[in-house]
Amino acid sequence: MATQTKTVLHGYFRSSCSWRVRIAFALKGIEYDQAPVNLIKDGGQQFTEQYKKINPMQQVPAVEIDGITLSQSLAAIQYIDETRPGPRLLPADPVKRAQVRMISDLIASGIQPLQNVYVLQKVGAEKIQWAQHFIERGFQALEPMLKQTAGKYCVGDEISMADICLVPQVYNAQRYKVDVDQYPTIKRLNQTLLEIDAFQVTHPSRQPDTPVDMRT
Amino acid sequence: MATQTKTVLHGYFRSSCSWRVRIAFALKGIEYDQAPVNLIKDGGQQFTEQYKKINPMQQVPAVEIDGITLSQSLAAIQYIDETRPGPRLLPADPVKRAQVRMISDLIASGIQPLQNVYVLQKVGAEKIQWAQHFIERGFQALEPMLKQTAGKYCVGDEISMADICLVPQVYNAQRYKVDVDQYPTIKRLNQTLLEIDAFQVTHPSRQPDTPVDMRT
Repeated sequence: MATQTKTVLHGYFRSSCSWRVRIAFALKGIEYDQAPVNLIKDGGQQFTEQYKKINPMQQVPAVEIDGITLSQSLAAIQYIDETRPGPRLLPADPVKRAQVRMISDLIASGIQPLQNVYVLQKVGAEKIQWAQHFIERGFQALEPMLKQTAGKYCVGDEISMADICLVPQVYNAQRYKVDVDQYPTIKRLNQTLLEIDAFQVTHPSRQPDTPVDMRT
Repeated sequence: MATQTKTVLHGYFRSSCSWRVRIAFALKGIEYDQAPVNLIKDGGQQFTEQYKKINPMQQVPAVEIDGITLSQSLAAIQYIDETRPGPRLLPADPVKRAQVRMISDLIASGIQPLQNVYVLQKVGAEKIQWAQHFIERGFQALEPMLKQTAGKYCVGDEISMADICLVPQVYNAQRYKVDVDQYPTIKRLNQTLLEIDAFQVTHPSRQPDTPVDMRT
């Protein structure tokens, strides 16, 4: 009954956290509607009263699913993993699950929040150097960690939530001119993952709200 | 076999993320050794080569358990929840689990990283106002969210990871002079939770590394 409601992703083509959810949906084969929220236009559509009711944090993504609204990407990803069939996004083994969550949280708590659009707006003129600093700081920790956990993917040989977090963060790193060549494991994993259909069709350059001049 | 290794928490009395793990250990009744890492002394003991091997991110906490090291608090908390007996830290119901994770991540990704000691050091002179801004922004979102999910505790009537995240974040808010009275649900939940033994014995004012003049 609850699963008959339509799944809606409120997101933005260029938001790395929105991209995470799009990848998870694609890997699981979940159909959903996209409700674009333009973070730049009109001073930011996330600040409207209407959107604030959907996500009081005034950020993307927010996922309407099964009659609830989930406004943190990793909570949404783990919810669909626990309630939907399809490939596991977290491994069955508790140690591997913990490693997947550790890598995901290093990115989701340790890097992404510090180069978020609303934080960089507050930083002001120094924002590019600020973003580079925190992404590089994070990648310097992530690289040795991934060297220990990675197989073909971030943790062993199965795609997981860690991979879902990694690729959008590398995209952001490149946007802020971080030299990803310095991190060979991150670089290799990113390249491998970008070959996969679920990462390609959900790419920021190919969304309904992607501006024409940014499409590929 | 693996569980015979000693569990060690590398933490700091005043770190809110370390406190989260201490609460989880206390709720589960897990015995552990504390290995204090003084974030201030000698320029920060987290920057030593020795500690960098334990946590390349050079932050606390890091948990050595079952032969692995977990360096993100929520990954560690969910690992012990999935591998140890005792009260559940995440509810069995998938919707409630998702709400617990959403609230936990709002704090762990949306608030805490922006008022972290190493971020505030980079902010410089404006650091108090910066911390206040991001804590208030987060609490303004958290308050209506908790109004919907809370019973006696953050999500319904069972203590969960969301409560484990809330109390240390309120402690930080008070440290940075945020007026918590503006958030009646947050205030009420914090007061209720601080009555509980697992929150009291793990309080920053009562740890082995708490300076004498900060003890209560």
